[in-house]
Amino acid sequence: MAARLPPVWKRFSSTITTRPAPPKGHHHVSLPDHVFPKGYALTGLHCGVKKKPELLDLAVILSTAEQPAAAAACFTRNAFKAAPVMVSQEVLQMSSGRARAVVVNSGCANAVTGKQGMEDAWAMVRATDGLLQRRDDASDAPETLVMSTGVIGQNLPISKIISGIESQAQSNPSSTLGTTFDAWERAARAFMTTDTFPKLRARTFTVDGREYRIAGMDKGAGMIHPDMGPPAPSGQLHATLLACVLTDAPVSPRSLQSALTYAVDRSFNCISVDGDMSTNDTILVLANGAAAQNAEEIDEERDVKAYETFRDELTAFAADLAQLVVRDGEGATKFVTVSVEGATSYADAHKIASRISTSALVKTALYGEDANWGRILAATGSVPLSTPLDPTRVSVSFIPKDGTTPLPLLVNGEPEKVDEVRATEIVSQEDLEIRVELGLGTESAKYWTCDFSYEYVRINGDYRT
Amino acid sequence: MAARLPPVWKRFSSTITTRPAPPKGHHHVSLPDHVFPKGYALTGLHCGVKKKPELLDLAVILSTAEQPAAAAACFTRNAFKAAPVMVSQEVLQMSSGRARAVVVNSGCANAVTGKQGMEDAWAMVRATDGLLQRRDDASDAPETLVMSTGVIGQNLPISKIISGIESQAQSNPSSTLGTTFDAWERAARAFMTTDTFPKLRARTFTVDGREYRIAGMDKGAGMIHPDMGPPAPSGQLHATLLACVLTDAPVSPRSLQSALTYAVDRSFNCISVDGDMSTNDTILVLANGAAAQNAEEIDEERDVKAYETFRDELTAFAADLAQLVVRDGEGATKFVTVSVEGATSYADAHKIASRISTSALVKTALYGEDANWGRILAATGSVPLSTPLDPTRVSVSFIPKDGTTPLPLLVNGEPEKVDEVRATEIVSQEDLEIRVELGLGTESAKYWTCDFSYEYVRINGDYRT
Repeated sequence: MAARLPPVWKRFSSTITTRPAPPKGHHHVSLPDHVFPKGYALTGLHCGVKKKPELLDLAVILSTAEQPAAAAACFTRNAFKAAPVMVSQEVLQMSSGRARAVVVNSGCANAVTGKQGMEDAWAMVRATDGLLQRRDDASDAPETLVMSTGVIGQNLPISKIISGIESQAQSNPSSTLGTTFDAWERAARAFMTTDTFPKLRARTFTVDGREYRIAGMDKGAGMIHPDMGPPAPSGQLHATLLACVLTDAPVSPRSLQSALTYAVDRSFNCISVDGDMSTNDTILVLANGAAAQNAEEIDEERDVKAYETFRDELTAFAADLAQLVVRDGEGATKFVTVSVEGATSYADAHKIASRISTSALVKTALYGEDANWGRILAATGSVPLSTPLDPTRVSVSFIPKDGTTPLPLLVNGEPEKVDEVRATEIVSQEDLEIRVELGLGTESAKYWTCDFSYEYVRINGDYRT
Repeated sequence: MAARLPPVWKRFSSTITTRPAPPKGHHHVSLPDHVFPKGYALTGLHCGVKKKPELLDLAVILSTAEQPAAAAACFTRNAFKAAPVMVSQEVLQMSSGRARAVVVNSGCANAVTGKQGMEDAWAMVRATDGLLQRRDDASDAPETLVMSTGVIGQNLPISKIISGIESQAQSNPSSTLGTTFDAWERAARAFMTTDTFPKLRARTFTVDGREYRIAGMDKGAGMIHPDMGPPAPSGQLHATLLACVLTDAPVSPRSLQSALTYAVDRSFNCISVDGDMSTNDTILVLANGAAAQNAEEIDEERDVKAYETFRDELTAFAADLAQLVVRDGEGATKFVTVSVEGATSYADAHKIASRISTSALVKTALYGEDANWGRILAATGSVPLSTPLDPTRVSVSFIPKDGTTPLPLLVNGEPEKVDEVRATEIVSQEDLEIRVELGLGTESAKYWTCDFSYEYVRINGDYRT
């Protein structure tokens, strides 16, 4: 790979041989139209935030169901929240958890942009509201949620974005809004920044014998270590992982939010590319009920079993979307599942899994295809826990993802005589699981991470220039 | 630089142009003999832990003062403590904070080595005790503290180490124990693993009109993110930063420990190379009083002013030693001071400084010589604090270390129009300060870190092989 280098590096002639990240395009798959949820029209287009005209930078997503969809969101807990994060929070509050549209731009994060940034985000909301056919009984409450991703500290080219949105009026013959796979894929492409493939998934699921559809798209490759929570009454939120999940199941806004909060804690909050939390991380969910317009909404107080079925479907779906981000991690050559088992609490297990997943030494060893359990152990031991570790009960093993025999590296605190050839065989596979057993309790947590490569340094030593 | 690469990488032909770490040998300086503390004899030798005969791997440090020295230590808080950490803790307890020797090996950490590891560490203590001239009134308590650094999970070649120690009997004509700069330097060299230069400093200081000397050596280049505390009654400790500080001032064991705990919190616990905490981190201090044998010991309850003078000298000295480790950080091309000011508590300021100092995105931007304040801000905002941040009060600036004008990047939450030429000028210097002002209070903290380079990935993708 002929690396693009900042000018200052040109004066140095040293070279390093690198293993480039493998191509990842095969993780983008074609899907039949019928698995996409009913009652949504969407598109992706180029409006001019990005320079190259072939790159899409604006996604418009409309719910075409008669009633507004239930809407829920989780936002980053970063103290510097971008304008779209603050505006989406306000919209959700004003509309009591209902919405009919989502608008997303890539290329500029509209973060740290002051008053102008807030005005621009509101302008995107109003322009998209203008695409919706207003009902007679409609209140003046906004019905669009907004997300932005890209460079921090620059203002949006707002007139280009507004023109792009307005070109999609449903009465406009040149509008590209659609309902097929092609339309969903264009929207997913408009989310991308340093991503190497669009991240789109869809599937069907059943609650109480009735079939629904769920589809979603997300983006992210760097600045990925989300910690997202439900909308807070004030402050302390921020995000650059963006995800939008749409379903045609009918769900009450309250239960949609609690299902999402549960799902995010077990999916997007369990991934790390580089340990850095963004100022724009946002995940939005709409449930428009288009598949069952006269059915009662799924609600945890009305029917807890139906609620839990939906919640678990959403969680599994969110985990799939979240893992796509790690697969596309900047410079990543490995996809690594870190499982911590035998803890006395989920929080302890999650903390250890997070620490191992962000350890520069573990991640560079994975890139070097070195079965260095000493670094895994050092990372494990460095976490303050509610129940202290007992080193004599800790075991570490590598679980190959091809179904062959696991390889124990440390058993009850004692190093195993490791077959280095077998260890290298496992570590050189693209997919790998590191399992740490604490031997203290029955709680467990999983984290998904990738390795740390020369390419990561290249990409991030040279992002703005 | 012709990079040594693991065999699997050879199949890839891609290359990246890299800026190699600058030579750092000039940070090792020659010092006059008279600044070294009185009453210590020491050496460094090759005993065979490392393969290459020219590499020193064993340091022996004896206090030759008549009375045992006051001794204090801080150890890593990692749950997996190496055998030498546990043994040194026990020695300090058995001897009520007194010691007369320190023995150190490099090349093997004696960590995760079970019962055999404990026996080996005790054997090192006993062999070194054997070098000391026992006084008639001596109890049977051990008088040697022990440290090890190197690979985890392998047993020490203990007979080679014991032979090495025994060769240094003061009656033995081939003993190389000495008191000159040359002897101190050999000891410092025997601490080294991936270090590129020996880390040795010495100076004089004055308490109550009396002059004393302090000298110290340390090692460390990777797995550097210490969090060390005083000896705990049980468990929860572990370390790969090693430091040994020796003074000829008379200090009570109790006050030596409290001065050290204070100093470590403001020096070694404020550095990061890669965010990874080791299983062997240890800092030891001996104060043998050889410069003033009939003077009363410095003690905080007897004379708080004298104590504070000593404590502040120790803190400044420890900060110098700690910074040498960051200068020699694996693959580092920059030395970066992160100052966080205007916090409501030291803990909040310290947490933010630590987060910025470990951010992969900030560190790769520094390597790329990119004044990317957005990443600094995202890292700042991701830390949960006791007093929430107010984004409109936060300012970020770069302070050049050549005395030229600071460069504001963000003032009260608003991005400055940055002169990119000037920004690049500052970021391309080897030394740099990032200053973050929170505008909330009067507390501040400093952290020292380095950048993240191709060389870091190379060194750690290829450490064991």
